[in-house]
Amino acid sequence: MTRIENVFVETIRLRADYCNAAVSFAELTGSVVAIVADRGDSSGPMVGFGFGSIGRYAHSEMIRERFARRLLVADPAEYNDTDGLIDPNRMGSVMRRNEKPGGHGERTAAIGAVDMAAWDLLGKLEHSPLYRTLAKRFNGGEYDSAVAVYAAGGYYYEGDGLARLQHEIISYLETGYQSVKIKVGGVSIAEDLKRIDAVIDIVGSPTKVAVDANGRFEKAEALEWAKALEPLGLCWFEEPVDPLDFDGLRAVTEEYPLALATGENLFSKQDVKNLMCYGGMRSDRDLLQMDPGLSYGLPEYVIMLDYLESLGWSRRQCIPHGGSLFNLHVAQGLKIGGTEAYPGVFEPLGGFGELVAIEEGKAQAPELPGIGWESKPELMECFRKLGKDGQITF
Amino acid sequence: MTRIENVFVETIRLRADYCNAAVSFAELTGSVVAIVADRGDSSGPMVGFGFGSIGRYAHSEMIRERFARRLLVADPAEYNDTDGLIDPNRMGSVMRRNEKPGGHGERTAAIGAVDMAAWDLLGKLEHSPLYRTLAKRFNGGEYDSAVAVYAAGGYYYEGDGLARLQHEIISYLETGYQSVKIKVGGVSIAEDLKRIDAVIDIVGSPTKVAVDANGRFEKAEALEWAKALEPLGLCWFEEPVDPLDFDGLRAVTEEYPLALATGENLFSKQDVKNLMCYGGMRSDRDLLQMDPGLSYGLPEYVIMLDYLESLGWSRRQCIPHGGSLFNLHVAQGLKIGGTEAYPGVFEPLGGFGELVAIEEGKAQAPELPGIGWESKPELMECFRKLGKDGQITF
Repeated sequence: MTRIENVFVETIRLRADYCNAAVSFAELTGSVVAIVADRGDSSGPMVGFGFGSIGRYAHSEMIRERFARRLLVADPAEYNDTDGLIDPNRMGSVMRRNEKPGGHGERTAAIGAVDMAAWDLLGKLEHSPLYRTLAKRFNGGEYDSAVAVYAAGGYYYEGDGLARLQHEIISYLETGYQSVKIKVGGVSIAEDLKRIDAVIDIVGSPTKVAVDANGRFEKAEALEWAKALEPLGLCWFEEPVDPLDFDGLRAVTEEYPLALATGENLFSKQDVKNLMCYGGMRSDRDLLQMDPGLSYGLPEYVIMLDYLESLGWSRRQCIPHGGSLFNLHVAQGLKIGGTEAYPGVFEPLGGFGELVAIEEGKAQAPELPGIGWESKPELMECFRKLGKDGQITF
Repeated sequence: MTRIENVFVETIRLRADYCNAAVSFAELTGSVVAIVADRGDSSGPMVGFGFGSIGRYAHSEMIRERFARRLLVADPAEYNDTDGLIDPNRMGSVMRRNEKPGGHGERTAAIGAVDMAAWDLLGKLEHSPLYRTLAKRFNGGEYDSAVAVYAAGGYYYEGDGLARLQHEIISYLETGYQSVKIKVGGVSIAEDLKRIDAVIDIVGSPTKVAVDANGRFEKAEALEWAKALEPLGLCWFEEPVDPLDFDGLRAVTEEYPLALATGENLFSKQDVKNLMCYGGMRSDRDLLQMDPGLSYGLPEYVIMLDYLESLGWSRRQCIPHGGSLFNLHVAQGLKIGGTEAYPGVFEPLGGFGELVAIEEGKAQAPELPGIGWESKPELMECFRKLGKDGQITF
């Protein structure tokens, strides 16, 4: 039996001095989490690390007072599997006790942070890189040898210009990326079309360039944008309307024949079900970007994937938001369509770390036990500080 | 110009050792908030108090680190009205800066807590009970002289029995309530039907008894319940399905000809819009229970009311969740259908206080400046403790 002995959590600040069409990230924070567990044998305490996925601020109090507390007062029998290892599914059930239905925001990222640390711990307990642990549990042991990744950047910066944007895109291509995504909707259509053209010029093909409006438009404006974007033949058009404006999204699907993408701001299976019922999304071309770390963790994400497959969708249409090393393992181990990458943004949480090379637009998770945070030294430093003034050494 | 000088927030524990069909409230917490402001004249600092509405735990860190902080660093010109008073609408815009779209949970209650304190402060600045301040701003000065209230109780208690339940209902009638609501779905249909019958026996008419399943049922089970409840002729059947299961709700509306109620777990106009688009709710009989305190505060609630009226709904169909003195003012000042009451539950946040008598099922907010928290001494004691060890005296 494995007992969770402690859960440590602290808030850190991200480095993110830029904007999308809806928000500035300059004050963005996140929660870093350590779960300390003991297997009850001579192996001593083990530690798993995780963080609250990117873009929705820290939830340290919520983790401490609600979700970690419920785990710490639970009988380990409530969250162990039959092999005496922690079971993140059962941990999720413990954490979600006495939570009212609906209102799937914030707590979804708080639980996601603890869940991420649980998977790191489980990989370490199994002496296995997380993607293999996931493949064993969810995929009959099968995993992808590499994952399609795209560089998400093209934010709006103070004193921005096309030269800076092109320079940024060149750096992605030089790193090994082939596909990129940039933000739109923060300036006029005419100005954004110039930005898109400047990026296509660098990348070489519109089919490797996606644009993201971050839910900024009302239906009418989204339709105007769809009309302007269609001739470009882009890879996808992301969040043309508010993430919960299913009526607006359906209208865009009726006018825009190319791929749309959404889902990064839907944090529960029930919200995804509503997207499927009412949003008009097309399984033969559209993309779904739900992020397990923002959505109560991997247990809920797997429920989403099963639900989508029951509707005839392929899980290859799922490409999570978030650009984290965790999601790289998830994509590889669950054989989904790929994952977002954040080269150089949202550090220290964003990015795949030093051991992950991008080759021809693909990446492989590191062959370290668990998530392999050791390959992200700056983040590892944040995790180590959770050890409370050296009281505990990780 | 009125400047917000400080926002204090602390977490308190509620007294709530009971369950509904979905959750136990034994570990329930809430945030109490004080806004200290200065008008810049000789009148000295003024204080407004509020709390995070009931059922979704405390959000003290979120208030401190995100929403209060944004107010404190803002230029007062960004949240003052043309009379040099704070404008809760503009305060809401400041608080919601750099928040991504979607995920309307938790932060909605955190902002609601600050908004409640802002309205208390505004009433005090105007030397007016809040309901009059609201009537002036939103209703051409018109308000209701009294508000229809119903006693929400009938929770499941440890070692529960019909005698305890009947005793509880008798106490509500003796206090002046005429309508009551009890929980269902925590035990079998047969057992709950006995509970409902026992309550009807006391109240005297099924049309004054509502039942609340707290979103516990899947569609099929909800339909089974609807069939069992229909012959009883109850006042309403609340949250038969998950609050976001619009497809399930629509199915229940097609089978259940009497009034349904939902909305207490929808925290944004966009979620309410989806309820209206897809949930099948009927404007001639169904009830909507959105709670301003859980939904980004009154500014978003007023947007919801305007939206509903644009669809042909009467605002009299709106009866907020929450059982708080704040919502009593809201109901009276906005002339909506009434409000929930929590006699003796969820204290010290729940309940209308010592000055509010229930007469023939109706209540009037106290004639004190602002919300009139002075009529709730135990809660006032929690607010006073926000003064940081006597550093500040409220």
